[in-house]
Amino acid sequence: MGLTIALDAMGGDGAPDIVVRGADLARTRSPDAAFLFYGDQARIAPLVDHYPKLKAVSQIHHTDVVVSGEDKPSMALRKGRGSSMGLAIDAVKRGEAEGVVSAGNTGALMAMAKLALRTLPGITRPAIATVLPTAVSECVMLDLGANIQCDDRNLVEFAIMGEVFARTALGLPKPSIGLLNVGEEDLKGHEAIRQAAATLRDIDLPIEFQGFVEGDAVWAGAADVVVTDGFTGNVALKTAEGIAKMYSGFMRSAFRSSLSARLGYLLSRSAINKVRVKVDPRRYNGAMLLGLNGVVIKSHGGTDSFGFANAIGVAIDMIKAKFNDQITAEFDRLGSFGAPMPKVASS
Amino acid sequence: MGLTIALDAMGGDGAPDIVVRGADLARTRSPDAAFLFYGDQARIAPLVDHYPKLKAVSQIHHTDVVVSGEDKPSMALRKGRGSSMGLAIDAVKRGEAEGVVSAGNTGALMAMAKLALRTLPGITRPAIATVLPTAVSECVMLDLGANIQCDDRNLVEFAIMGEVFARTALGLPKPSIGLLNVGEEDLKGHEAIRQAAATLRDIDLPIEFQGFVEGDAVWAGAADVVVTDGFTGNVALKTAEGIAKMYSGFMRSAFRSSLSARLGYLLSRSAINKVRVKVDPRRYNGAMLLGLNGVVIKSHGGTDSFGFANAIGVAIDMIKAKFNDQITAEFDRLGSFGAPMPKVASS
Repeated sequence: MGLTIALDAMGGDGAPDIVVRGADLARTRSPDAAFLFYGDQARIAPLVDHYPKLKAVSQIHHTDVVVSGEDKPSMALRKGRGSSMGLAIDAVKRGEAEGVVSAGNTGALMAMAKLALRTLPGITRPAIATVLPTAVSECVMLDLGANIQCDDRNLVEFAIMGEVFARTALGLPKPSIGLLNVGEEDLKGHEAIRQAAATLRDIDLPIEFQGFVEGDAVWAGAADVVVTDGFTGNVALKTAEGIAKMYSGFMRSAFRSSLSARLGYLLSRSAINKVRVKVDPRRYNGAMLLGLNGVVIKSHGGTDSFGFANAIGVAIDMIKAKFNDQITAEFDRLGSFGAPMPKVASS
Repeated sequence: MGLTIALDAMGGDGAPDIVVRGADLARTRSPDAAFLFYGDQARIAPLVDHYPKLKAVSQIHHTDVVVSGEDKPSMALRKGRGSSMGLAIDAVKRGEAEGVVSAGNTGALMAMAKLALRTLPGITRPAIATVLPTAVSECVMLDLGANIQCDDRNLVEFAIMGEVFARTALGLPKPSIGLLNVGEEDLKGHEAIRQAAATLRDIDLPIEFQGFVEGDAVWAGAADVVVTDGFTGNVALKTAEGIAKMYSGFMRSAFRSSLSARLGYLLSRSAINKVRVKVDPRRYNGAMLLGLNGVVIKSHGGTDSFGFANAIGVAIDMIKAKFNDQITAEFDRLGSFGAPMPKVASS
């Protein structure tokens, strides 16, 4: 028996087309996967018909309700469980699917998934994580926006979840953990981050805590897991995207600026394309909502079928690695690392 | 009568050489400038002797005391005013110089400058600002690390200071202001940033408040002035540096990866060099410590004489634009925009 992925077929700019084509691509990579599509049957069915092998492992469940990109999480919760996103999450809740992938609204996905699936034992707040390229390899960064303000306990939980992800899903034997800060010295940063560092230094788990890492060191590969609050993580991730886009734009203009540069581009194109592939955001598509009682993956809303297939691949990797069992085992082993802290407001 | 710049001749990795050579380069660009060097006379004098025109407009004041890169601000304050950094700041305090430039320890420079020069009327906290390249032009970003936690009043003050800088020193007629946030919608972010946005929307100044800008939009040129707390600003700036470095590294390897790519590089080199010049960190060297009763500029510690000359150029631009008079006028005009908020801990 293979594994089953529930798909919000209506989420994202290119839905349902890229969802169906992405699923077929994911199926070629993971032939044991089966799919449950949730959304507009009249639009999904003809697309699935194009891919007989996909059709053989797919079921379509109809709904007219769609959570839009503009809906606030509160509105999404009201439209709720009848939507393509809500039904896909419910499939995981009922055990009919092992994971869910949606390219819809992130806030809505997190709110509905939290309500339906609940957090894993020991986890106060789920976090959004993603894998990113560095100069030497890759790193996992979290939180990327689920928790605007974080206390030290949240940060420690993110560190443990990130560590387990890097070990199980990325296969790193002993991933190093860094806390994103404005300097490396112990006294740098605010109270929550300094207290989180103190806890991670003393914690009763065989983790490799590196201490603080700065914004530039992340991309030099200073740590396998980079932990931060959701506000800073979101700004850092989007800054990285923005700078990458600015540079590619400058280079594109440069290569068009003279005949000699055009010729130079033609000669170096295959080498430059390797760089493009290395940092292709579609390769890194698929943000993990970690800490939930089920595998939930958010695809970028503007990705194509290649990117969506990668998001499905992330779900499959996490399921195969039994990520959530490992997290639970880690927190069991840890017991309580200090009394729960007072909660601060979430976004 | 020209203007006089006090120089911490002992701050930074290449001191005092790059300081003296940077001053000579700045002098060629601003022939009305004079310089006061503070530091080891025996090392500075022979260097200045190499540049007769610089020598004619320079004075050297000896001290053996240097604030090191590792000194904490508290230690720097103790070593204090006898150091090359402290004496250079004091020259501004006593009115012997209009501005000071140091490539030494940022925390020490801010702490000593705050103590000696005090903040301008209306300013609760000084901020570190810098000019950065965007896809379409340039922007000013602040705070970059002076204030780890900020309330709404701090953010509003940063916005006004940044606006005045962009208008006076950069010459933008009506600079737009954006608050860095995790989304553009009103409800995004934390309380301080939402309250700052509300104040900036209502404020009795003819400023162009754009609302919230996201981390990627900054580099597309979404706002002329980007306002954020020092923690987020520091991470964003260093992330930008780190990604830029990662990309240049990838491109360098790509151009070396085959004979055809090497040839391609040779043909496109002059176009690529234009990109390099456009984003050259030395061109953007010179972070402004805004909100102090005097012009204080921090040069990158690892820059060369070209970069140091640019930092001196920033000081000269701010002095000529009468930046501090403008700030004071703006805050006078504004009166008090709400009762002072309770202070939160600074770094």
